[in-house]
Amino acid sequence: MIERRPSRQGVEAASQRIGSEITRTPLLPVEIEGVKLWVKAECLQQGGSFKLRGATNRLMLMSAEERRRGVVAFSSGNHAQGVAIAAKKMGIAATIVMPADAPAVKRQATLAAGADIVDYDRRTESREEIGARLAAARGATLVPSFDDVDIIEGQGSTGVEIRDQLGGAPDKVLVCCGGGGLSAGIALALPEAEIVTVEPFGWDDMARSLEGGRIVPVAEDAPPTRCDALQTKLVSPLTFGPLTERGARGVAVTEDETAAAMAFAARSLRLVAEPGGAVALAAALTGKAGALTGRSVIVVSGGNVDPLVYAEILEGQATRARYS
Amino acid sequence: MIERRPSRQGVEAASQRIGSEITRTPLLPVEIEGVKLWVKAECLQQGGSFKLRGATNRLMLMSAEERRRGVVAFSSGNHAQGVAIAAKKMGIAATIVMPADAPAVKRQATLAAGADIVDYDRRTESREEIGARLAAARGATLVPSFDDVDIIEGQGSTGVEIRDQLGGAPDKVLVCCGGGGLSAGIALALPEAEIVTVEPFGWDDMARSLEGGRIVPVAEDAPPTRCDALQTKLVSPLTFGPLTERGARGVAVTEDETAAAMAFAARSLRLVAEPGGAVALAAALTGKAGALTGRSVIVVSGGNVDPLVYAEILEGQATRARYS
Repeated sequence: MIERRPSRQGVEAASQRIGSEITRTPLLPVEIEGVKLWVKAECLQQGGSFKLRGATNRLMLMSAEERRRGVVAFSSGNHAQGVAIAAKKMGIAATIVMPADAPAVKRQATLAAGADIVDYDRRTESREEIGARLAAARGATLVPSFDDVDIIEGQGSTGVEIRDQLGGAPDKVLVCCGGGGLSAGIALALPEAEIVTVEPFGWDDMARSLEGGRIVPVAEDAPPTRCDALQTKLVSPLTFGPLTERGARGVAVTEDETAAAMAFAARSLRLVAEPGGAVALAAALTGKAGALTGRSVIVVSGGNVDPLVYAEILEGQATRARYS
Repeated sequence: MIERRPSRQGVEAASQRIGSEITRTPLLPVEIEGVKLWVKAECLQQGGSFKLRGATNRLMLMSAEERRRGVVAFSSGNHAQGVAIAAKKMGIAATIVMPADAPAVKRQATLAAGADIVDYDRRTESREEIGARLAAARGATLVPSFDDVDIIEGQGSTGVEIRDQLGGAPDKVLVCCGGGGLSAGIALALPEAEIVTVEPFGWDDMARSLEGGRIVPVAEDAPPTRCDALQTKLVSPLTFGPLTERGARGVAVTEDETAAAMAFAARSLRLVAEPGGAVALAAALTGKAGALTGRSVIVVSGGNVDPLVYAEILEGQATRARYS
C-alpha cells in the first residue's frame, strides 16, 4: 500500500471543500522599515486561529457512521477550539484531551463550543495515550493536530487564499511552526514562494531539522516559552517532507521579540496576536527572516491569549516604549 | 441654488470611486447572548478607522489645481490620519490642526503618514478658525471631518460593503456617532435597515436631537470621556437629515460599558478597538440597542488608542473578570 501524502491538489480540493464553512480572513497591508507588505490575519478566523481549517476538512471527510461515533482530539487549545467548533457545526460529539495548565481562555472557549474536556498532566501523562484510549473505548475518530494528511491540506487553504487575495503568488511567506501543519500546507499551496518557518528560541526543532536534513526533536532542557501553541516536541514526516523538499528554512525568535511583535500587532494592525501567533511577525520586525518585499506575506496565526497575560505584555511594552 | 445633499446614489458612486484605494474590511461573525450576528471590523481600515473612506472620496473629487495647493484638516486624530494617508497616496500636501492633548499614537501616525501638524489648545482656541485661516493663507482646501457631502458619502461605502458581504441588507446596524458622518452615510447606503447611533454618556447629542426632531448641542457640563473620537459638540444638518428622515434612534453607553466592550473585542474578536470605536459593541452587549438577529451588524469603527491606556483598560477588565 502506498501511503497517502499531502499534495497541492489536496490543498486546492480542501480549500474548495471548506470555503463556505470558514472565514476568509483579510490580507492586511503593513509597513515595516519602509517596505509595504502583507499580513494574513488568521487570528480573525472563527475560534481565533487557523486550526478551524484543518479540523473542518478532516471532519467533512468522515463517513456518516464515523460522525455518529464522535471525535477525540488532544490539544493545548487552538486545535481543540477548531475541532470543537467544526464538530458543533456538523452535529458531531467532540471530546478534547487538554493539559490541566492550558490557558483559561482556551479552555472556556472549547467548553463554550460545546465540547467535553478531559484533563491531563503535561509533565506525567501522555496525551497521545489518553486520546487513543478514549477513541478506542468509544469508537470515536482521533483528530490529530498536525500529523494527518487532511489536516495539513486543510491548513494549506490559508495559502490558497493568500494567492487569491494578492492576485498571484507571494515571493516569501513567514509562518509560525509548531508541528508544521500550517507551514507544510502553505508550502504545498504556494510552490513559487520561499517559505520561512518561525519558532520560539529553544523550540526551533523544525529549523534544525530542515538545516540537518532529518527530523530532530526539541532538546529536553528547552527553555520556558509563552508560545503554548508552538510547544511541539517532534514534527512529523508528513509536515517535514513538503518543507524540506521545498528548501524551506527556519528561524527562531526570543520571548522579548515575540512580546514586541504582539505590541506592534495591536498598535499598527489593531490585531490581538497570541505569543505563538506573533512569532512570524517578530521574525519580520527583527530582520531575521531576511529581505522583505511588497509581495512578502506574514501569517499572524492566532489570537487566543489569557486576557491578563495579554494586558501585562502590552503594558510592559508600552511602558518600555514611553520611557526609552 | 439648490444645496447639494448626500444621497444613496452618491454613496454608491463613492464606493465605486474609492474601492481600489481602501481596504475592504472583513465582516466577522460574533455571538452575543446566544445570537450569532456580525461585526464590521473597520478598525482594520488603513489608518485604523473608517475615516480613510471619506477623505479618499473628498480628495479624489478635487481638481488638479486644488490638489496642487494642498489640504488642511482639523481633527483629534482619526480623520487626521485618514486625510494624511489619502493625501500621501495622491501626492497632495496635508496640514493637520490637532489638539495638543491628542493621543500620542494618533499624532505619531499622522506624522508618519507625512502630514504637518499644527497644534491648538482644545480649551481656549477654535480649531475651525485656525483651520480656516490656514486654508485661506495657502489657498488650500479645507477637508471637514463630517460636515461635507463627499465625506459623508465616502463613509457610507462602509454600508455598501456590509450589504455585499452579508448578501443583502442587514435588519439593524449599530454604529458610533461623533459628528454623524459614518452613521448618516450608512443610513443612506442601507435604506432597509434600522439604524441605531451610539454615543458616550453625556455626549449623546445626536440621540437627543433625533428624539426631539431638531439639532441640539452637547451640554456645557458634559462629563469627561475616553472616547476622544466622539467628542463632537454639535452635529450637522447634513448628517442629522438622513438619520432623522430614516427614523434612526440613538442610545448612550457609559465609560465602564465601553471598557468592557473593548475587552470583549480583544478576547472574542481579536480586534483592538479604541474607546470611541467600541461604543456600538457596548450597546449590543448591554442590550441597549434592543433585539439583535442574525442579520444585525455592529460597526467597530476604529482602533487607535494609546498603548499604555489600552493595556491599563484591558488589565482592569481582566482583573475584574478573574476575581468576580
